[in-house]
Formats: sequence, structure tokens, C-alpha cells
Amino acid sequence: MDFDALFQAQLDELKNDGNYRIFAELERKAGSFPTAKCHDEDSPEEVTVWCSNDYLGMGQHPSVINAMKEAIDNCGAGAGGTRNISGTNHNHKLLEAELADLHRKEQALLFTSGYVSNWAALSTLGARIPDCVILSDELNHASMIEGIRHSRANKVLWRHNDPEDLDRKLAALPANAPKIVAFESVYSMDGDICPMQEIVEVAEKHGAMTYLDEVHAVGLYGPRGGGISEQEGLQDRITLIEGTLGKAYGVVGGYITGSEALCDFIRSFASGFIFTTALPPAVAAAAQTSIRHLKQSDQERILQRERVAYLRKRLDQEGIPHLENPSHIIPVMIKDPVKCRMIADYLMQQYGIYVQPINYPTVPKGTERLRFTPSPLHSADDIEKLVLALKELWKQCAISHAVA
Amino acid sequence: MDFDALFQAQLDELKNDGNYRIFAELERKAGSFPTAKCHDEDSPEEVTVWCSNDYLGMGQHPSVINAMKEAIDNCGAGAGGTRNISGTNHNHKLLEAELADLHRKEQALLFTSGYVSNWAALSTLGARIPDCVILSDELNHASMIEGIRHSRANKVLWRHNDPEDLDRKLAALPANAPKIVAFESVYSMDGDICPMQEIVEVAEKHGAMTYLDEVHAVGLYGPRGGGISEQEGLQDRITLIEGTLGKAYGVVGGYITGSEALCDFIRSFASGFIFTTALPPAVAAAAQTSIRHLKQSDQERILQRERVAYLRKRLDQEGIPHLENPSHIIPVMIKDPVKCRMIADYLMQQYGIYVQPINYPTVPKGTERLRFTPSPLHSADDIEKLVLALKELWKQCAISHAVA
Repeated sequence: MDFDALFQAQLDELKNDGNYRIFAELERKAGSFPTAKCHDEDSPEEVTVWCSNDYLGMGQHPSVINAMKEAIDNCGAGAGGTRNISGTNHNHKLLEAELADLHRKEQALLFTSGYVSNWAALSTLGARIPDCVILSDELNHASMIEGIRHSRANKVLWRHNDPEDLDRKLAALPANAPKIVAFESVYSMDGDICPMQEIVEVAEKHGAMTYLDEVHAVGLYGPRGGGISEQEGLQDRITLIEGTLGKAYGVVGGYITGSEALCDFIRSFASGFIFTTALPPAVAAAAQTSIRHLKQSDQERILQRERVAYLRKRLDQEGIPHLENPSHIIPVMIKDPVKCRMIADYLMQQYGIYVQPINYPTVPKGTERLRFTPSPLHSADDIEKLVLALKELWKQCAISHAVA
Repeated sequence: MDFDALFQAQLDELKNDGNYRIFAELERKAGSFPTAKCHDEDSPEEVTVWCSNDYLGMGQHPSVINAMKEAIDNCGAGAGGTRNISGTNHNHKLLEAELADLHRKEQALLFTSGYVSNWAALSTLGARIPDCVILSDELNHASMIEGIRHSRANKVLWRHNDPEDLDRKLAALPANAPKIVAFESVYSMDGDICPMQEIVEVAEKHGAMTYLDEVHAVGLYGPRGGGISEQEGLQDRITLIEGTLGKAYGVVGGYITGSEALCDFIRSFASGFIFTTALPPAVAAAAQTSIRHLKQSDQERILQRERVAYLRKRLDQEGIPHLENPSHIIPVMIKDPVKCRMIADYLMQQYGIYVQPINYPTVPKGTERLRFTPSPLHSADDIEKLVLALKELWKQCAISHAVA
């Protein structure tokens, strides 16, 4: 069996469709975000990053950096084991307490990533709650889809952000079947925000558990950064809130929060939690510092909102179409994988502007896009350069100005 | 639906069986390993850790600590995105080159954990190779089991470390079916080592791909720390070698190595690789430094072997039974979850000796054990204290001296 030939054939197919991914090789520069050094041939040595999920630049905040380095001096590099076998460090417990407080929940449980937190929690809930049905928003993230798939529970898809459809789907199920409604607050590819109150009310009406992914919202929304559920005052009505430490908090890792029984249940039964080395204590210390900072400081959120609004305004003024949404994510739709890659390459090589083309499977085929995430650290000058580059490109490429 | 009551009922069952896990809350102290501060009530403030997977103490090696802190100063805390969307850093590429060289393979691919590397690689291979059959050693790690389960490929279990059984199982399959033989080098709970050459020969005879997990061997075996496959000179005959950065290398993260086509295939199709924030550049820098060090230095491996042999000898002299094996892992079988926890509690509270009781589901019910992992940094005095404490306990508890 020639396995390599089989692999190559599937890779060639990706390439032919324009969906083969080429990673930009960056070197982040603490203190210079959003500027980074680029190690790719054909690219300028210094580029402006326009697609980072370090949404507020907290990854280079001096207090975060210092907390991480101090914890390394104190505890060393790694945790040294799984959480059960010598790997639970004081920093993990402090971080879990911080997270429980952030979402006003009894407890929190830390995972190695947001992906693993969704996958492990949903696969455990779906597998261990007898006759469980999981009602999943049709645009949920891959980590939720894979968690549900892995659980082998019954799965019902409901129309994206449509509480009426959810209501119909819930009503069609047996009244006594355990039900979990799984959804996100901010959907990262379109930047739209769910109608949380309506969804919660529909779920409550049918006695369903609510499972909310806030990874693109924590740190960014709510007076303390508790996400859309905090902003809407709905934290106590959501059963489980999941989040990440790798986006607005600028570090890495994921978590769930909920009741004591819920967290203990996942802690005790989730394979993806149990059988894996714990995050380094220094990662936990850095994340805790970042969360604490954004609980008290609104400055980063306010500045980010200004920059997002300003980029939108300038795009409108220059006739560059972008998807309307109430979040910090600005998608410019290209709708073709080859064009999308071409424009991104051109921006990088000619202008030193780095925005990754977003193609299938991250978004459905035919909805390829560039996705801009302005941070508090993108200057007016950065924005102007981006808008003028896009304007020139739009002219050259004769891309329809009404593409979105 | 009272979900909390349902969770609590399953937790109560765990508790009744003696399988409820209580994590020891430690505070690692760089420079003092294996000593750690303990934050648990009823425990001494200072304890000696006897169950860490930081097998060589590399988590506190000055060069590892310095590399990690330097990278934080340079790049900040997090990677800022998935590998595809702004998250590939120069440090990731350097580490992948280091790993490919370690196992003499064309390429390597980094994951957020060893668990994820197994889960993502096996689920992708099993799902995307048409009619694939995965032949899995019956004692493979949870991450491999879950990856195979997730792939929904046909799975055939073969008897643990039994190449003849593997041969029979392979012979029973259609000659033209794509086959993957998945196994580990060092099995962490019994500490036994697979008959790698025989397994490879059987796999080759049937044209099967070999998938080898070396997580408990990398850094520890082979002249450059390339694992049992390096020690046995079999690296080039194994299709895929998987490993971790979280055990002997003392940091966190996982990886696979193999042909360029294989790594590109997993990179391009594995959901668990694609849709997750990349490891912090500083983690990659620390891990690379640790690998480089253990490529050149044998001192840690030699010292560890001495300590392992010495502890075994002292246990034998005092009549404390332990499982024979050729590795660095010394299991002392207790075979009862309640007793196992009791002895561990007593060691911790009375002697400041921390060894986590290993109960179900990490090991099968009835094979509960204490698992000691002597490092180069455990002194003769640490070993003497441990042996005398066990001796005293053995007397008090009247545990059979021939239990293993």
C-alpha cells in the first residue's frame, strides 16, 4: 500500500480547488504589536498583522508578560503531569477560581485549549447523559461539532441564530428526553451575535440545558469581560459557559464554568481532561493576570470599539463592501478561494499587510473572505494604509464593489 | 430535568467504588525538584514528588527556563491565532525541524498536546483512508483509543505486545485493505516495552503502516533521546512516530513525525490541528532547547537509570514487591482502589511523600497501584526515606509481600 501516494492525491485535490493552506511564518515582537517580523520569501521583513485573535494585544501586556516570567522563575517550565498525577499546580486552582468569578459560576475547569474544552465537555455530556439529544446551531465551531459527533448522542441541527426554529425542534422531541442546546455568542467568521435572551427562554421553556461558547467574546464584552452573557445579564441562566484564554486574554488554554456538580462531572469523566498533561503553571499565571486586568480595565475594549468603527467608516467611504455585524470582526467577502489567496498574497507582498485568506473548511465553499480584526493597537495610520491598499486592489482586480 | 442530580448520582457511584479522584494541589519550586510546596490541608507544606512525568527534571533546567523567558520577552505570551490564521511563529518552525531531525524523518507537526496529536492524527487517518482498518494494541492510551473511535474506521484489537497475535489478525484481513498498526514503545502504567522489531516485521510483511507512540520514551531512550525506535535502530522503518514535549522534555505539547506527505496530510485535514490556537512561541522555544540539550547530553539519562536501579534494589532488599520491567517506571501493585488511596494519603500526610494512587479508569479495576518515577534529582536520601516509609506501612497494613 503506497500511503504517501494516497495522501498526495488528496492534497493535490485541495490544491486544485485553491483550498491548500500556506501558513505565514511570523515572529511576533512584544511591544510592537500589530507589527511582526515575517520569515516568508517574497514578503517584506516587517508586516502589520490584521487577522490576529490576540484581539486586545494582551499577549504583550507588561503585567501578563511579567506574571508569566515570574511563574517560570518560581515553578519552572511545565506542570510535570496530568492534573491527577502531580500536575495540579496552585496557579491552576487560582485561575479556575478567577474564571468561576468571571462568569459568576460555582466552579470552573481548565483544559489545554478551547478546542479540547468543547470537544471533551460535549462528548462527555452527550455520552453519559442517557438518551441525551444535543440541539446544535448549524454554524457551531468544529470543536463543538466533533465533540457531539464523538459522544454519539442524537444530534438535531437548528437554523443559525433562529430561536423559533429551535423552539420547533425542541417541541418535536419527547418531553422527558434530556436536551442540551449548544450555541455560540459571537460567531467568528461572520461576526454576528446570537439572540441570547430568546434562545435562553426557548431552552428554559423546554427544560433544556444551555451550553454557550463565548470564545470570541470573553474579555471583549460585558463590563468585566464576562462576554455577551454578562453584557445581557444572562450568566445565571446559562448552564455552562465555555471560553478561551488564547484570544482576548492573549495566552492559550480553554475552560468551562458551571455548577459544582457539572464541573466535577466533566473533571471526573472526560477523557480529554483526564489523560493529558496540565498547562504550564506560567500559562495559568499569565492568563489569570490578563483576566484580572480586563475585569478592571475598560480602556482596551473602548479603544478597540473605536478602531473597529473607524475602519468600518473608512471602508464605507471608499466603497469597499464588508459584512454588517455588531461585533469586532470585519469580514470582507471575496467568495472565491483563488481570488481570496491572490488578494491576500498581494496585500502581503506589496503592502506588508498580513491578512490570512479564509477558505474552506473554515468557511463554506463560495463564502471565502478576508477577515479583519482591528485592535486597540492598530493606529489610524495602519487603518489608512489598509484602506488605501484595498482601494487600489479593488480597482486593479475589478472586484465588484457590491460583492457582499 | 435536574441535570445536577444526574451528575451527582454518577459521581456518588465513583465515590462508592473508591474511584473518585482528588487532586493534590502543588506548587512546583524551580531549583528544588523533586521537592514541591503542597497546598492541601492535612499535608506537610513540603513534599517530595515521586510520580512526576517531568522524568529528568528538564522543566527546571536553567537553559529551558531561560529560553522560555527570552522568547516571552521577544514574542509575548501567546501565539495570537491558529497555525493558519496568524499563529505560526518562527519558533514553531524551528521546533518542528528539531523534531524531524530527532526522529530522522522528513517532517514534524506540532499539536497542543500529546493527547491531541494522537487523537487528531488517528482520527484523520482512519476517517480519510478509504476502508482503513486500525489494528490497535489492547493497552493503547486513551488518546489513541478515542482517535480511533472518532475516525469510525474498522478497529481490530490485538493482544498486548504480542506480534504473533498481530500477525494472525493482519492475515485475517483482506490483503488489499489499508492497515495501520498502532502501538506504544513504553507503556506507562506497567512500564513494559514493546517488542518493536517483531512488530515492525509483522507490519511490513502485511504492508501495514506503523503508528508508534513514544511519549514515555522520547528524551529518555536512544543516544539522542529519540526513544526506543532510535535505541533499536528502527526509526526509518516506522511510518509515524508520535511524541510529547510534556514529559521528559518538561514543557507541554505533542507532535507527530513522518514523511512530508503524511505530515502535510494531517496538517491539511485534521480538525484538532486546524481549529485551535497554536502553542505559545515561548513553549516552543523551551521545548526546542530541552530537546537539543538531551540530544547532546547523556548525563541525565545515566543518572536516572542509576536511581531507578537503586530504588528497585532497595525495594527488593526490604521485600516490597514491584512489577518487573525494563523501563524507568516502578509500579507497586495494591490491587484495591480504597487501600491504594489510603496508602497514598498516609505517605503524604505522615511522610511528605507524594505518589498519586492510580485507579480506574487509568488502569483496569483490580490493578490499582502506586507508580514511582525516580529522576536524576531524587537523592539517595529521598530513596531511603521512601523505602523505609513503605516498609513501615507494609507492616502496619499487613499488605501481602507477594502482592505483585
